Amino acid sequence: MTEQVILGIDIGGTNTKLGLVDRNGRALSSMSISTHATEDVSFFSSYLQVAIQKLQEDVVVPFTLCGTGIGAPNANFHSGCIEQAPNLYWGDVVPIADIVSNITGVPTWITNDANAAAIGEMKFGVARGLKSFVVLTLGTGLGSGIVIDGELIYGHDGFAGEVGHVTLRQGGRSHTTGRLGSAETYISATGLERTAFELLGQNHAASKLRTKSMVQADAHYLYKLARKGDEIALRAFNITGELLAEVIADSLALLDIEAVILFGGLANAKGLLLDPMHMKLQELLSAEEYQQLRVLISDMKGDNSAILGAAALAWQVLSATETGALTPE
Amino acid sequence: MTEQVILGIDIGGTNTKLGLVDRNGRALSSMSISTHATEDVSFFSSYLQVAIQKLQEDVVVPFTLCGTGIGAPNANFHSGCIEQAPNLYWGDVVPIADIVSNITGVPTWITNDANAAAIGEMKFGVARGLKSFVVLTLGTGLGSGIVIDGELIYGHDGFAGEVGHVTLRQGGRSHTTGRLGSAETYISATGLERTAFELLGQNHAASKLRTKSMVQADAHYLYKLARKGDEIALRAFNITGELLAEVIADSLALLDIEAVILFGGLANAKGLLLDPMHMKLQELLSAEEYQQLRVLISDMKGDNSAILGAAALAWQVLSATETGALTPE
Repeated sequence: MTEQVILGIDIGGTNTKLGLVDRNGRALSSMSISTHATEDVSFFSSYLQVAIQKLQEDVVVPFTLCGTGIGAPNANFHSGCIEQAPNLYWGDVVPIADIVSNITGVPTWITNDANAAAIGEMKFGVARGLKSFVVLTLGTGLGSGIVIDGELIYGHDGFAGEVGHVTLRQGGRSHTTGRLGSAETYISATGLERTAFELLGQNHAASKLRTKSMVQADAHYLYKLARKGDEIALRAFNITGELLAEVIADSLALLDIEAVILFGGLANAKGLLLDPMHMKLQELLSAEEYQQLRVLISDMKGDNSAILGAAALAWQVLSATETGALTPE
Repeated sequence: MTEQVILGIDIGGTNTKLGLVDRNGRALSSMSISTHATEDVSFFSSYLQVAIQKLQEDVVVPFTLCGTGIGAPNANFHSGCIEQAPNLYWGDVVPIADIVSNITGVPTWITNDANAAAIGEMKFGVARGLKSFVVLTLGTGLGSGIVIDGELIYGHDGFAGEVGHVTLRQGGRSHTTGRLGSAETYISATGLERTAFELLGQNHAASKLRTKSMVQADAHYLYKLARKGDEIALRAFNITGELLAEVIADSLALLDIEAVILFGGLANAKGLLLDPMHMKLQELLSAEEYQQLRVLISDMKGDNSAILGAAALAWQVLSATETGALTPE
């Protein structure tokens, strides 16, 4: 009997990762190509075609490709299109599911990266067995995937989970969307940097950060500074952790979830971010609420996590189809 | 053939309304009794037993009672209990579903009033045909019922939809929960009153409100003042409408709903509340988002709306059972 596999593709603004993933979340082969975000999408699709060919040749066991799952910015599950993605210049509406299906000959499902992460955590990660949770993706931006009663919420237009666009501070920081004070401008790698530079103005403490430009001082640099005890960097993590707790408390009030899962680069800051987050959560929640809520850190490590998330989407749709709950479009 | 009916019960802090409702949302008979909130629950149950008897005698056509639906504060769908309701003094956990089932001999389902309103709107009201929406109940407090893909979200502990407990203004107004700045302290009849009295301090404009105590000046009085052009009262409605828009914009970002339905006393303030709300929504949302989002006012008028909502809950569970999707507990 041949092994059934899914092609998982994670399209980022710079690189696209892809891999063949089995039912147990094991990547049989994987690779990375340039997204060619600023060129015509035909460049991307021809590079992708070559890469998919190579991926399949790399697998030594007999297998059947059953479908493709894609995680991409502004990807709409319902339409199969990437719509108005701010970091891709392929056009306003790109029918990426059709493009990829034409290459592979198998059905393709797409969703945004945060939703793919949520499904990945549910099928292969720390959310196994959980029925209602929110995955917060703490990367360059802030995203979320919401799972209720075991089902990911796609929303009416396919864009549910935009917790990054929720207003956290009225009249606060500006954002490319034009909104003011949205959560993403505070709780993200970029938000951490903005907080640190605000603090340079507000607080006179000595800091190595004073010799760096904003472009030089990324979140990873701030992490290293904070670990060495730099007061400004530490305070920036503190503030970010406390703001994260606010978003978690509001999500709990609205959705009555059993767990929050933190995913992405900033989640690796561990105690620097999590200690102030827990302190603030205890302040915002009742003792019972705090005790019941589980805050988990994604254990999907390394480059394959995004591929696994994308593949999990397709596995989920296929499982639902097998049980008759959903017919693929 | 006898008519199938549901007993719908809406338990409030002061009065309890009950009625027999058919599949089309028609109340065949209805009445109201005192909730006896400060006495032992056995008082309430014996009064309820008499009332249910009388309700059934009032119906002139032959009928079969198929079940009971209850809307009540802090009612937990999963457990069938009222848990820590702040305005009922029947004990911490009251097994109200069991109490009522013992009276009627038919299955009973319960949920909180905002969730009952959401199901009522979906089955009998303005939300017919909608798949994803939020009902905001603008009463003494602020509640919400969230429907995604045609299903009400109950949450892990049965308490989803507590939009009133979401933080709207950090460090803002105090609340019995101990939280600061929660949405309920601004967007509700009580919130409107608090805003008006804050304005009396901040704004020197002449106002009839200056001769009234906070206890005298309820939301209905403020409505009458505003209609007569009182500057303070008008401004209070303006602010409340703008804050309502903030909650709606955040709900849209998070849940990607197609509609928001406003329910409850404050929703009847119409333009006084809705005009500033729409102005602010246009500021907060993109043109496309604003155009797509429908803000609807509940058309469930009169005393029966809460009964219909409670009955709709039971009708929904029974329909799901008939189609095999859900087995009653």
